Amino acid sequence: MTNEINLVDEYDIAIVGCGPAGLSAAINAAIRKKKVGIFGSEFCSPKLHHAPHIDNYLGLPEMTGDELRQRFLAHVKKMGLKIKDSKVTGIYPAADGFTLQSRDTFYQTKSVILATGVNTVKPIEKELDYLGRGVSYCATCDGPLYKGKKVIVLAYNREGLEEANFLAEIAEEVIVVSQVKENDARGIRLAEKIKQIPGKPVAILGEMWSTGVKLEDQELKADGIFIIRESVLPDQLVPGLNVSNQGIVINRECATNIPGVFAAGDCTGLPYQLSKAAGEGQVAALQAVKYLDELKNKAKKLATV
Amino acid sequence: MTNEINLVDEYDIAIVGCGPAGLSAAINAAIRKKKVGIFGSEFCSPKLHHAPHIDNYLGLPEMTGDELRQRFLAHVKKMGLKIKDSKVTGIYPAADGFTLQSRDTFYQTKSVILATGVNTVKPIEKELDYLGRGVSYCATCDGPLYKGKKVIVLAYNREGLEEANFLAEIAEEVIVVSQVKENDARGIRLAEKIKQIPGKPVAILGEMWSTGVKLEDQELKADGIFIIRESVLPDQLVPGLNVSNQGIVINRECATNIPGVFAAGDCTGLPYQLSKAAGEGQVAALQAVKYLDELKNKAKKLATV
Repeated sequence: MTNEINLVDEYDIAIVGCGPAGLSAAINAAIRKKKVGIFGSEFCSPKLHHAPHIDNYLGLPEMTGDELRQRFLAHVKKMGLKIKDSKVTGIYPAADGFTLQSRDTFYQTKSVILATGVNTVKPIEKELDYLGRGVSYCATCDGPLYKGKKVIVLAYNREGLEEANFLAEIAEEVIVVSQVKENDARGIRLAEKIKQIPGKPVAILGEMWSTGVKLEDQELKADGIFIIRESVLPDQLVPGLNVSNQGIVINRECATNIPGVFAAGDCTGLPYQLSKAAGEGQVAALQAVKYLDELKNKAKKLATV
Repeated sequence: MTNEINLVDEYDIAIVGCGPAGLSAAINAAIRKKKVGIFGSEFCSPKLHHAPHIDNYLGLPEMTGDELRQRFLAHVKKMGLKIKDSKVTGIYPAADGFTLQSRDTFYQTKSVILATGVNTVKPIEKELDYLGRGVSYCATCDGPLYKGKKVIVLAYNREGLEEANFLAEIAEEVIVVSQVKENDARGIRLAEKIKQIPGKPVAILGEMWSTGVKLEDQELKADGIFIIRESVLPDQLVPGLNVSNQGIVINRECATNIPGVFAAGDCTGLPYQLSKAAGEGQVAALQAVKYLDELKNKAKKLATV
């Protein structure tokens, strides 16, 4: 873990998620000779891994979910594609497309395909209201703002505990409210300075700016609050993204409301099914390719004016 | 070939077409325990059969189109589903859903999934204007109207020649303008009464009602005109169906403008790709299932009022 943020790699198409939709998008974009980045977490599609029996993916009858998962990964590998084990925490407009923010690296990309799966995260009360006003999902990005101040880390995974240690190097005081299972926390030793408080966060406190966290039985005050969990809501991931109760709103071209940002698979809504996900991944990739070609043509036209 | 039209078989979901979209729809509908009819022509997906190399169907890399075609058919067979070698020439509203018209049989179905593939048919000038007014696609259905009269058969396939023979039993005079290749016509002997005229049809003639066919170099008069070719335009297949330049207009649920009629695959527009087709087939099937369940619930509610 380092304090520095590096800007590395530039992509034509950055694919966020490596379930069936993300992988289908990846192989299609690669065949079209685009520079593809696939961003995933440790294990691609745990949901697929746990499916005992899948019989409705045309051409591969009577498979376990894990057999399909391994076939999908093998297909991607065979095409020379690698999955980056890197969690994307934010996607922001940049001069030449978008900047993807991860824990310790920024990536540049001309277009984005969101394939983040079903979102089961329920934000804490008022969390979204205070995002960017004292509430952050990224310690590396926003930690330096809290030099000499007091922060609370709501840790839902192992990474949350690591981020607390990082913040302990900057902030004056760090409180951790951990929901991490003992097994997942194995081997991590929290810095001495960190104070652990047991409890379950129920709301973010504050007025114009967040002032603390409400647990079930007490209130904790702080200048900044870091919430570190496995997945990020799509509209927090991409500010301004149009979402509904069903998921990310897309049209039949898998385009979202933001030009250059496409979405595919379970994150776009029901049915949560393999073929649907793979099909949307394909459409999203081909539409992203079309978008890039149109960008290039526009640039050429401008150059000849 | 018989003069009689039989009403057989009732389905929950009739799937018209047996390419990847149709077969994906079929396995999904069957898993949901619906009574499925799959209507295809002799050889499922000749287009897939001719693809030399397909590398973008996730999970099955480096395949020939025909290997995939055979895998898809094997999957369907494994699930106990059979493909009916029957060309659907018209789909019409009926009391309890829809009637599918084929050459010699009517089928009843509660819902329909159109998976008819890319349509490369270009209708002859004025053909669509005179459809139902002297122009017909089905000799068995409309032949009896021309007892003692004169008809022209524009035959684009083997079936067209067979239909001409059938019409020769009814009509007084039958002219055939054949575009059928010698190889495809092998073994068919036209009835003595039939007059063959060489040429290429360019337009249907007529005023309120069609009166004949214009060839490149002459005009032929007749009371009725039968046009028999491999595929039927989707909006001729289903009167009132909303189509655009791109294909059948559907929403993200694969629903067309007609309740109970869904569409999937190449017939709904670009990209003409396997995964997209299989994904839409799946969505169409699951939405058809939902439609049938809602129908049942409505019926129950009415029963209890």
